[in-house]
Amino acid sequence: MPDYQTILDEIRDEVQPLLTRGAVANYIPRLADVPREKFGMAVVTLDGQLFQTGDATEGFSVQSISKVYTLTLALQSIGDRLWQRVGREPSGNAFNSLVQLELENGLPRNPFINAGALVVADVVLATRDDPRARLLDTIRRCSANPILHDDPQVALSEKAHGFRNAALANFIRSFGNLENAIDEVLDFYFYQCSLVMSCVDLARGFLFLANQGRCPWSGDTVLSPDQAKRINALMLTCGTYDAAGDFAYHVGIPGKSGVGGGIVGVIPNRLAVAAWSPGLNAKGNSLAGSEALERFTSKTGLSIF
Amino acid sequence: MPDYQTILDEIRDEVQPLLTRGAVANYIPRLADVPREKFGMAVVTLDGQLFQTGDATEGFSVQSISKVYTLTLALQSIGDRLWQRVGREPSGNAFNSLVQLELENGLPRNPFINAGALVVADVVLATRDDPRARLLDTIRRCSANPILHDDPQVALSEKAHGFRNAALANFIRSFGNLENAIDEVLDFYFYQCSLVMSCVDLARGFLFLANQGRCPWSGDTVLSPDQAKRINALMLTCGTYDAAGDFAYHVGIPGKSGVGGGIVGVIPNRLAVAAWSPGLNAKGNSLAGSEALERFTSKTGLSIF
Amino acid sequence: MPDYQTILDEIRDEVQPLLTRGAVANYIPRLADVPREKFGMAVVTLDGQLFQTGDATEGFSVQSISKVYTLTLALQSIGDRLWQRVGREPSGNAFNSLVQLELENGLPRNPFINAGALVVADVVLATRDDPRARLLDTIRRCSANPILHDDPQVALSEKAHGFRNAALANFIRSFGNLENAIDEVLDFYFYQCSLVMSCVDLARGFLFLANQGRCPWSGDTVLSPDQAKRINALMLTCGTYDAAGDFAYHVGIPGKSGVGGGIVGVIPNRLAVAAWSPGLNAKGNSLAGSEALERFTSKTGLSIF
Amino acid sequence: MPDYQTILDEIRDEVQPLLTRGAVANYIPRLADVPREKFGMAVVTLDGQLFQTGDATEGFSVQSISKVYTLTLALQSIGDRLWQRVGREPSGNAFNSLVQLELENGLPRNPFINAGALVVADVVLATRDDPRARLLDTIRRCSANPILHDDPQVALSEKAHGFRNAALANFIRSFGNLENAIDEVLDFYFYQCSLVMSCVDLARGFLFLANQGRCPWSGDTVLSPDQAKRINALMLTCGTYDAAGDFAYHVGIPGKSGVGGGIVGVIPNRLAVAAWSPGLNAKGNSLAGSEALERFTSKTGLSIF
Repeated sequence: MPDYQTILDEIRDEVQPLLTRGAVANYIPRLADVPREKFGMAVVTLDGQLFQTGDATEGFSVQSISKVYTLTLALQSIGDRLWQRVGREPSGNAFNSLVQLELENGLPRNPFINAGALVVADVVLATRDDPRARLLDTIRRCSANPILHDDPQVALSEKAHGFRNAALANFIRSFGNLENAIDEVLDFYFYQCSLVMSCVDLARGFLFLANQGRCPWSGDTVLSPDQAKRINALMLTCGTYDAAGDFAYHVGIPGKSGVGGGIVGVIPNRLAVAAWSPGLNAKGNSLAGSEALERFTSKTGLSIF
Repeated sequence: MPDYQTILDEIRDEVQPLLTRGAVANYIPRLADVPREKFGMAVVTLDGQLFQTGDATEGFSVQSISKVYTLTLALQSIGDRLWQRVGREPSGNAFNSLVQLELENGLPRNPFINAGALVVADVVLATRDDPRARLLDTIRRCSANPILHDDPQVALSEKAHGFRNAALANFIRSFGNLENAIDEVLDFYFYQCSLVMSCVDLARGFLFLANQGRCPWSGDTVLSPDQAKRINALMLTCGTYDAAGDFAYHVGIPGKSGVGGGIVGVIPNRLAVAAWSPGLNAKGNSLAGSEALERFTSKTGLSIF
Repeated sequence: MPDYQTILDEIRDEVQPLLTRGAVANYIPRLADVPREKFGMAVVTLDGQLFQTGDATEGFSVQSISKVYTLTLALQSIGDRLWQRVGREPSGNAFNSLVQLELENGLPRNPFINAGALVVADVVLATRDDPRARLLDTIRRCSANPILHDDPQVALSEKAHGFRNAALANFIRSFGNLENAIDEVLDFYFYQCSLVMSCVDLARGFLFLANQGRCPWSGDTVLSPDQAKRINALMLTCGTYDAAGDFAYHVGIPGKSGVGGGIVGVIPNRLAVAAWSPGLNAKGNSLAGSEALERFTSKTGLSIF
Repeated sequence: MPDYQTILDEIRDEVQPLLTRGAVANYIPRLADVPREKFGMAVVTLDGQLFQTGDATEGFSVQSISKVYTLTLALQSIGDRLWQRVGREPSGNAFNSLVQLELENGLPRNPFINAGALVVADVVLATRDDPRARLLDTIRRCSANPILHDDPQVALSEKAHGFRNAALANFIRSFGNLENAIDEVLDFYFYQCSLVMSCVDLARGFLFLANQGRCPWSGDTVLSPDQAKRINALMLTCGTYDAAGDFAYHVGIPGKSGVGGGIVGVIPNRLAVAAWSPGLNAKGNSLAGSEALERFTSKTGLSIF
């Protein structure tokens, strides 16, 4: 086994010059206020060992990373029927684009673009009594963090500035691909984006995807081995917006990012790794976080390819 | 002067076989219920003579034809500053397309596509105390019909099925090109679409555009001669959705249509002409109405070209 | 009758400050070398009177203006069957765009975008023995200029830099909408673009479109009254690239422009007017030329609307 | 080790009903004439063991599969400088689309869409004396098949029907992203598509990508370990046209397909597997071949995820 602790500490030092190069998301004040020199990283291996460096236990807004969890819930609920309502192809357009949605009659390309996540949210809403509690409980158990919570101020801000997502939801609804009230779908979506997790939470919380769908500490079977494998495939092809090809090329593992600066990767049958740095690159992924993950796979020689 | 009455009666007979070929708009029940064998036509000349045939005095939902009046109010209010918020080019896409709007950063191509009409509605809302009364009063005076009114059931239905327009409004708002609350803009837009006019109302009500902006009976100066001329230009290039080129080619005069089956044309310094038949062609214009206007310009030899 | 001579001289003075603001087309040296302070303008009335100012007799490369003549020849040859191979709608995209062509399966939107002009060229090539001679003869007779000629150097340069047009031609061919050899179509297209005309030639040469399709001096019936009217409609909706709406709005008459800086307008039953200034605006139309035509219709009060 | 022979034979039996469901590529006669009931499959493991079933030694036109080899040559020649001329992102559009190319100014999205392959061909042409010999020699050595050859009739047919590729090449050239003469680029491209390989050839010939870039039998270092890894990443995200997401989801390994019906997959550090069946699905990938690879990864439990 590589010396993960040393590698993480090296990476933390190496990315320092990058921390000021990215642009912190500023569409809502709560995100804009996060200091951009923050950097944390954590690794959790299949046997439960934890390695961390920097601000690895500091919570941040997970934003789009939550889409992996709502996809998980939707697959738990309706299985492969989900794919009648959302595709599995990379979008080849910016992550909130309406163009492709119009050309493809309201069927979002994949569950990780906003349009797809709204449809997934609609599925989750339609199938359970208390979807927020179910989502929170799932994440808490996966992350072994019973006090993990949301940030209501973020959700409120998202809602106040959420015209693009409201446009998407109305547009999808006009094609008949949303069942619940639009405001409920949007509120649930803003809720999921507002969850607060640290690198340690994320590394722990994604380990079930490296472990055939089973959470090592809770013993929960979150997904079937096959479903876990397929979420990994989706993260690889669609997990980092319009930079998925580049991420696969440079980092070489399934990953999911959020505009809060978090980014998490999965190495099947090995480990999960998370990094956080609020400054984003032009594609909307954490600049130093992407670099950190690339260095991690280079230094460890780990890759799925 | 051509024998307009004979010409209108001929046309009414000639278009009979077409009345059953179009598809009546069915996205709301109130429109879907209109019998498709209806046909009316009316001509009003600059000196105030009225000619009519068929169901020319029966009211129908004007829908997009109202966009000419809200554009008129917007030009009255803010003049050429309007063009900082909406373009003047044909769209080259279906009338409710979001694609072009995305590529052009929230600036609608022209005031007659739905996106542009929403921005125009926003301008009208922003500048007067009671925009509905102002709109209704303007149309009543232009049409010399003091009891002209809206159909609240149509507006309610439009709202209940208005996801595409809500998507447009939210999308435009995300680019900062709407100032009023989205629901207010939509409500005003659905109100204007729900106005009920007959062919006679429309022919009278558009005559100011053939008359240098001045309404012959009320004596009102609705617009300056220059503004009237320019609205005519806009109707010619953008007034009949993605069939404007075809309409200019076949009919050869400025015109504006609505999905209620109405279509109205202006021959500058001569007359205004309106036709109504609920069945629509593939481009969303009245099938028999378009044909009726083409026959009218052919038989009279009138054209702007 | 307005005092055309005075008006032209006024306009010439007024546009002087604009002459250096446009960008001369520089994709081929022969065009780039034209001095940008050139300006000419000419008017020919239906009764044959000629008015001119500035560099009105200096020849320049007509470029896209020639598309009106090849459209004329194509309509002479196959009439309305032409519209099975090319549309009549404004494009809503840049004039050489392949995007729309792909979405619409190789049917160009109108005869004045490059794709449409290539199809028109193909039609002209397919129907006569010596299409170049036929084209040249038609233009010479219309312009009453028996020594009007092409500039072979321009055609050669166009060909050497004509990758975008070659892409269009191959693309259209892949949809089966070209019949002749691609190189022949391109050569004919580059030939037509290379024709050299002055403002006086153009004003004379477009007068048949203001005169029901008949050339006043030669007495030739170039087109039927109906065909002439319809070409005017096409020029209004599609004649000035993606600025057709703006041109209709500001100038208010049918017109056609070329990247050589020429621009010509038709006022049905009255006159034809041409202006030339090599500097182009952002839409590819002569900057001072467009302004000159706008001032002309303002000062004379002439407009079709 | 799974019992590969039994698995292959099972798959051969199971896919029989699918063989008649796909559509054989018919844009050139040579491809259209291939009997669609053909099916072959071969696996070669890292230690050189070969397993095969059905028509596994019958040659067919590799078409787009050759793009992996020209990419290999281009990386050998200019390394990462290649990425200044072609991207690494999935296209989200049909494989020969010009739309995205226009929106992105002539920089193809990835080396496996036709536009990208033309740029790669241009790079290969620019850097060596005899690129055809170099390409053929590389493939022969990798496949351990010294008599592997092209099919000149296929190349000729491709050229005769190659208008779409000619459009692409001219279009790319118009952006300055091709250096060699267009005809040379196209001829080389048609040559590479016309190479004839069997499933056994392909499984052997792709093994270097499962083996850190080194060919086991020749001992050649074809690429560095890092480069091999990255080609695998590219195949996963972009190797099967607009079905890459679906292929990753269902098959879960890097793969590359061609319209000749071939499809080859790589399981890093394990094996290469190839299948062939001429009938294609709606996305242009071998219908039975895709299914065969999916069954192979299911039955063996092998996947990169």
